[in-house]
Amino acid sequence: MKLKTAIKSDLEIAQHATLKSIEKIADQLGIEEDELELYGKYKAKLSHRILERLKDQKDGKIILVTSINPTPAGEGKSTVTVGLGQALHKLNKKVVIALREPSLGPTMGVKGGATGGGYSQVLPMEDINLHFTGDLHAITTANNALSAFIDNHIHQGNELKIDHRRIVWKRVLDLNDRALRNVVVGLGGPAHGVPREDGFDITVASEIMAVLCLATSIENLKERLSKMVVAYNIDNEPITVKDLGVEGALTLLLKDAIKPNLVQTIEHTPAIIHGGPFANIAHGSNSVIATKMAAKLGDYVVTEAGFGADLGAEKFLHIKARSAGIKPEAVVIVATVRALKMHGGVQKEDLSIENIEAIKNGLHNLAKHIETIQNFGLPYVVALNKFTGDTEKEMSTIMEWCQNHNHPIALTEVWEKGGEGGIDLAKKVIQQIEKKENRFSYLYEEDDSIEDKVLKIAKNVYGAKGVEYTSKAKKQLEEMKKNGWDKLLVCMAKTQYSLSDDPKKIGRPTNFTITIREFRPSVGAGFIVALTGEILSMPGLPKHPAALKMDVDPSGNAIGLF
Amino acid sequence: MKLKTAIKSDLEIAQHATLKSIEKIADQLGIEEDELELYGKYKAKLSHRILERLKDQKDGKIILVTSINPTPAGEGKSTVTVGLGQALHKLNKKVVIALREPSLGPTMGVKGGATGGGYSQVLPMEDINLHFTGDLHAITTANNALSAFIDNHIHQGNELKIDHRRIVWKRVLDLNDRALRNVVVGLGGPAHGVPREDGFDITVASEIMAVLCLATSIENLKERLSKMVVAYNIDNEPITVKDLGVEGALTLLLKDAIKPNLVQTIEHTPAIIHGGPFANIAHGSNSVIATKMAAKLGDYVVTEAGFGADLGAEKFLHIKARSAGIKPEAVVIVATVRALKMHGGVQKEDLSIENIEAIKNGLHNLAKHIETIQNFGLPYVVALNKFTGDTEKEMSTIMEWCQNHNHPIALTEVWEKGGEGGIDLAKKVIQQIEKKENRFSYLYEEDDSIEDKVLKIAKNVYGAKGVEYTSKAKKQLEEMKKNGWDKLLVCMAKTQYSLSDDPKKIGRPTNFTITIREFRPSVGAGFIVALTGEILSMPGLPKHPAALKMDVDPSGNAIGLF
Repeated sequence: MKLKTAIKSDLEIAQHATLKSIEKIADQLGIEEDELELYGKYKAKLSHRILERLKDQKDGKIILVTSINPTPAGEGKSTVTVGLGQALHKLNKKVVIALREPSLGPTMGVKGGATGGGYSQVLPMEDINLHFTGDLHAITTANNALSAFIDNHIHQGNELKIDHRRIVWKRVLDLNDRALRNVVVGLGGPAHGVPREDGFDITVASEIMAVLCLATSIENLKERLSKMVVAYNIDNEPITVKDLGVEGALTLLLKDAIKPNLVQTIEHTPAIIHGGPFANIAHGSNSVIATKMAAKLGDYVVTEAGFGADLGAEKFLHIKARSAGIKPEAVVIVATVRALKMHGGVQKEDLSIENIEAIKNGLHNLAKHIETIQNFGLPYVVALNKFTGDTEKEMSTIMEWCQNHNHPIALTEVWEKGGEGGIDLAKKVIQQIEKKENRFSYLYEEDDSIEDKVLKIAKNVYGAKGVEYTSKAKKQLEEMKKNGWDKLLVCMAKTQYSLSDDPKKIGRPTNFTITIREFRPSVGAGFIVALTGEILSMPGLPKHPAALKMDVDPSGNAIGLF
Repeated sequence: MKLKTAIKSDLEIAQHATLKSIEKIADQLGIEEDELELYGKYKAKLSHRILERLKDQKDGKIILVTSINPTPAGEGKSTVTVGLGQALHKLNKKVVIALREPSLGPTMGVKGGATGGGYSQVLPMEDINLHFTGDLHAITTANNALSAFIDNHIHQGNELKIDHRRIVWKRVLDLNDRALRNVVVGLGGPAHGVPREDGFDITVASEIMAVLCLATSIENLKERLSKMVVAYNIDNEPITVKDLGVEGALTLLLKDAIKPNLVQTIEHTPAIIHGGPFANIAHGSNSVIATKMAAKLGDYVVTEAGFGADLGAEKFLHIKARSAGIKPEAVVIVATVRALKMHGGVQKEDLSIENIEAIKNGLHNLAKHIETIQNFGLPYVVALNKFTGDTEKEMSTIMEWCQNHNHPIALTEVWEKGGEGGIDLAKKVIQQIEKKENRFSYLYEEDDSIEDKVLKIAKNVYGAKGVEYTSKAKKQLEEMKKNGWDKLLVCMAKTQYSLSDDPKKIGRPTNFTITIREFRPSVGAGFIVALTGEILSMPGLPKHPAALKMDVDPSGNAIGLF
């Protein structure tokens, strides 16, 4: 027999937890019986009727969790989000956590879930990390049904005169599968469609995911789906879902996926997990409906945005908050000793060596993200998320730097201690909120031109000195004006590893420009994606995928899932 | 406003039905609370613990519903299955209906569901016909994860020396999408996999669907998955899932999909709906676990097999019944005036004209299917399924022919009248069962060679005079011997429209031979598929797909779904 290490895996901790029935969790929030659709004993879908019933209720306070630029060392943003929720719960606050749904691709590929970790997890983590309530599968199906409708339309006579070289709608799968990035479909002769180039993205990169997450109702979902551009005709005019007449069918396929999912944390704090758009080619935060519902059900909502504050928080604030008419009351910026050391130039293999100098260098990255949140006029607290192996001196270097610069900071130990480890953070966040110094404003206006929007983000969020455009991007700017898309919001697609568009420039790069290589309109989502480099929208599997260790025992319990 | 026709659509009837909570339905069957996993208010997954708890309980009597060769006129086999179940329920029998799960492909493509019709439907039909409890999505995911693992293995160095020209594992989607039948994947350069030919089947054609439906437990599921052949190496030796080491991960992805789903009919008769393999390249009936569970929970089980008796019943009896160790107590053979007229030579557009001669000619098709069931030694009842427009004289022609030949027959009006319309059929079925004249035996033995198995089916089921093999098939017979697969069962893939392998030969063709063009081993399922012609395992969409009429109202109710 193998010796077991003393540290339990996330799955082991999760499987030893005692869950309350989801009806009890719902009852805590005053959800009525007919507003709850059970999916097993510990998951439920929430009816949109809740929003209707509580429409005159005051909204809870939204706390947005973001972080410094991510590094391969890991920051634990989801873990802090869950831990902060649990801490507020321990302080007897009525709190709802609002998270994104994980994708199966990374689950099968690289060890590491999206449901928090240690004693700050949402449960049942096996279900949430696998098929959950089927939302991603519904999106996959709707996305690929649309592809089938496009190819069928061409095959059946092509009344809309779709130029099959200019079909921009790609197929998707909720898997990591590099072999599907570039494919040719429609081969085999005239009975089998029209040959053309195509490709598959991962499901979370589908515009339908972004649309579902920004929709405010079933009607709004349908309206957004109708506007999605799938191709151009031989006169280079956009062809939409509405032109194909399938917006009703797509909405029907999504009628349950649009309902938020209720689960609980390991400490029985309610969590709504719903939607999970890519944080580069989309806006990277959970659904508007889920966030609004959480704000109606709780006095506090703890939610997170993808990647670092330069991508996730910027898009949360400019795209999601604007579309939903919400604003956060405070922002938590997660930093870790390990990540700051990497921003200070340390390699991953040297992370276990104490290195105060590297931390001091790395703090410039944190400083920039703090400045960005200050630019938005929002109160903030830095959460120093403790990892095993962080030394006292390393931690106090960070704590002292924050104190010296008047940045509120709290040490969190939520991975190891659950909510108890986040009490200080929770108290400091409440303090910031109660000071009422929130002067939130956008850094660009809807009326700004696309170039102005991009420039304002690049200067005020990334710290760039300017923006350059490739000739392709310049041509696309003209086309977007022609199509009337020049007042849409901008969704930046940039490497998450750097404030700049070069992933190697860690820390706080200065004196750089951002290059926009290409635009991609997501008209249904309501934004133009501005790509600053190659964005891989279909990941690949590593040589030894996490799947190799996965198994099920004869009673159906998961083995080896994280 | 539009005038509404007097005849309600299936969806309208379904939406006006009053459902009982699924807990009440489960309670009727003595299912315990912790054996039930709710999926909303009217669907639930059933735990395998039920089989364990009731293992010493006597099995209920299985009634298999099959039909004459299907025609474009429709036979209503599912409607009769549901109606017969409702009728038995009305006669106070403890009955469970066991059906297949519908595929989304046909739902989006061609109007017409797989949940029965009129007043003999299983509900909630919108959910069952859309994503239901996600079983098909789980199979799609497991199937495509396996494809990703294969391509990744080759990309990462190809230790198993897989010949990428001989990968037999195809990708799948639960959609009708002809453009995906033949594709080239892995394009775009060395970072994006190895280019090769591939193709997509519809999910129900995945060997994983057949495996899930034949598995008797989680362990057996994993064992079957491990044996699936995905490719051949450069020495032409088979490569299995076990060689790739991902049988645990695939089983994990299917851990919930393997649990049967409980729903109810419009008259609150319990129905278990689980699994739905293709009836040509697989065996075409619901899962073994569901059927066995239904037999433990009910005194009577009404179930159906795909297509006509030559395909569906033959494979139900030879493959499923053998793998599961079950046998039916009686068989119902569904026939209709319209279908018999088509077998008698009438075109679809002339079906509304009374034509007694055509019926008399068409009855030869019914006669052959009756003979087949007699060859299996099973009691039977012919169900004449009444359609609006059938004339008295047409119906009495069929009734009299049956009476003259001593074939038990019952007129069913279950579409219009629900269970009440199937009382006569139910009584006659019970009568046949109580006569105890069941002398069931297989028409071939497991020990027979593949050629003998095929010949026995062709002669005793199709009425063929012999079997021919293409040179490709002959070569494959040798290879199967070499690989030790020559004692597997045989799964015939043949047109459903004719007893022969030529879809144009309607009625009862004579003096014909069957040509086996190709074999495909499904080692995990435990059978060799014998293909008699081109079998399309990915359907296409029609010019005006059913999807064009689909919609959702603002409250989330389906519109235009059948």
